[in-house]
Amino acid sequence: MTDRIIIKDPFDMHIHFREGEMLDLVAPLSAETFSGGIIMPNLVPPVDNIERLDNYISEIDNAVKGYNFTPFMTIFFKKYSREFLELVKGKIRAIKLYPAGATTNSDEGIKEIEDAFDTLRIMEELGIPLLVHGETHGFVMDREQEFLGIYDHLATEFPKLMIVMEHITTAAAVELLDKNDNLFATVTLQHLCITLDDVIGGLMQPHNFCKPIAKRPEDKSALLNAALSAHPKLSFGSDSAPHPIDKKESAYCSAGCFTSPFALQYLADIFESNGKLDNLQRFVSDNAMINYNLSSNNKTVTLVRGEYTIPEKYGNVVPFNSGKKLNWKIEEVS
Amino acid sequence: MTDRIIIKDPFDMHIHFREGEMLDLVAPLSAETFSGGIIMPNLVPPVDNIERLDNYISEIDNAVKGYNFTPFMTIFFKKYSREFLELVKGKIRAIKLYPAGATTNSDEGIKEIEDAFDTLRIMEELGIPLLVHGETHGFVMDREQEFLGIYDHLATEFPKLMIVMEHITTAAAVELLDKNDNLFATVTLQHLCITLDDVIGGLMQPHNFCKPIAKRPEDKSALLNAALSAHPKLSFGSDSAPHPIDKKESAYCSAGCFTSPFALQYLADIFESNGKLDNLQRFVSDNAMINYNLSSNNKTVTLVRGEYTIPEKYGNVVPFNSGKKLNWKIEEVS
Repeated sequence: MTDRIIIKDPFDMHIHFREGEMLDLVAPLSAETFSGGIIMPNLVPPVDNIERLDNYISEIDNAVKGYNFTPFMTIFFKKYSREFLELVKGKIRAIKLYPAGATTNSDEGIKEIEDAFDTLRIMEELGIPLLVHGETHGFVMDREQEFLGIYDHLATEFPKLMIVMEHITTAAAVELLDKNDNLFATVTLQHLCITLDDVIGGLMQPHNFCKPIAKRPEDKSALLNAALSAHPKLSFGSDSAPHPIDKKESAYCSAGCFTSPFALQYLADIFESNGKLDNLQRFVSDNAMINYNLSSNNKTVTLVRGEYTIPEKYGNVVPFNSGKKLNWKIEEVS
Repeated sequence: MTDRIIIKDPFDMHIHFREGEMLDLVAPLSAETFSGGIIMPNLVPPVDNIERLDNYISEIDNAVKGYNFTPFMTIFFKKYSREFLELVKGKIRAIKLYPAGATTNSDEGIKEIEDAFDTLRIMEELGIPLLVHGETHGFVMDREQEFLGIYDHLATEFPKLMIVMEHITTAAAVELLDKNDNLFATVTLQHLCITLDDVIGGLMQPHNFCKPIAKRPEDKSALLNAALSAHPKLSFGSDSAPHPIDKKESAYCSAGCFTSPFALQYLADIFESNGKLDNLQRFVSDNAMINYNLSSNNKTVTLVRGEYTIPEKYGNVVPFNSGKKLNWKIEEVS
């Protein structure tokens, strides 16, 4: 039995760092254990111009100062000119598309997506990946599956554009991964652990509430199998999304699970209990390095067997599965 | 356009009155506008013996003193002797079965249901209706549908036993109503109003969280159509289930929507906006009187057109859709 795991350059390919005090709280918690990660641009207002991007980069650099961590920046998808994209290309790793402009499979939805084609064509030419929150505005359990046709359409229309289906939650999305060479995906920790039953099947649990919502048992199985087998087109993306407790335990609860500080330890538990510890390195690092063409930071994280309890809180943020005991803890980061 | 509706003897065929302070808070709110209602026995410990029943009857009588309201008592289903059932028959209107003992379609589930057959046979002979919380322990969105086979089995096995499918939430349950003469159903206010989208489709809303969980849009449509057409085997049962606010806006939120104080006004809105105001009397009274063989209390509730806002709170209970404006208000109860 292995008692020590060394992970080289773990990457978190989907993180919400927020701004201000929350950024200062959570960014170091990712920067401590991860070698880098993709920082999402959905702030208010969104990161969609050079000045906002430069300021956000400065704020993040300041928050992760002293850590061996590379923030991979993104901007919020809208129609951009070739001049702008050429200018910004060196500062970002990808552009993130949210479904406001690409909502359904209906004629209107397709038309909107086609309005984005000029920008997507330039991104394809410049080699800028497209990250997508792929949900329609349909019934909550159907939203991801309804969007898969749009992924398929985009992947066919732009065969050289790298398209990442972010935080996939369904068996159908896993299947689609193998249909188009240029379709990739991230999956979160929570979607490997929970189904809708853990959100509303017993008592309702706001700290298990995220978007896309956790789906059916067979969906969780498909995601878990893809992660455990280190599917080469799938990377870990925590979608770690902190909210203050008063926005969660509330009459109107915000969507998001906070997982980044203990994601590696938790994943080690999951991979070990399924006999797939050997695939963890590929799932949390190698796949991302290859697919996103990342450079090593020569960072290593050493996990050792030993009880680690997920804290009740980080500041004013209650994490996913607070109080749960894990079987792996971090011994050293170097 | 009608500006006044007179409802004669409105009945709420599924209520949770609780005990102690909560009973004192909520029982008068039902007793004010309803002529009577079925009081559920799922207290801790459950109402399953004469002493507990007698005490609960006294407590309720005390809480609704001065109101023209008949509480129809129930006991918690377990194996009961003929002697006990003959003794208790005059004090109760029905027996309520919860799925702990009848959980799945699996062999074990069926075996457990068959363990209940002796008691059900006596109930059939004595004319005591069986009320059922019909959910398996399966995936949350499938639980009711998975239970329908058990309803079908019971209805066939005990053709003279009145069986009520409580708080139905699916189109499939509505369909089953027409298959067996001795199957009846109740439906809540909230299941005529919301789908799962209103629970977790936007921000998560604990005050819309109940069991069985609200289902798909097509399920809501089927329930609404059955209610609006005053399906003769369907009665209104609010399942009004108060919880203190700290049990709702919480890391572990209790299931239940509190609706009884404004259910009639809200139903008037729904029936009017769908052009079916003429069917409201049957849905909230006549069907129940016929199917459960109830006597009139000669109570009338007069609703008049006029803005009524659902209160933010009743004591420490936040009601369903607090703050919503309704178009009907109660003018007089006599």
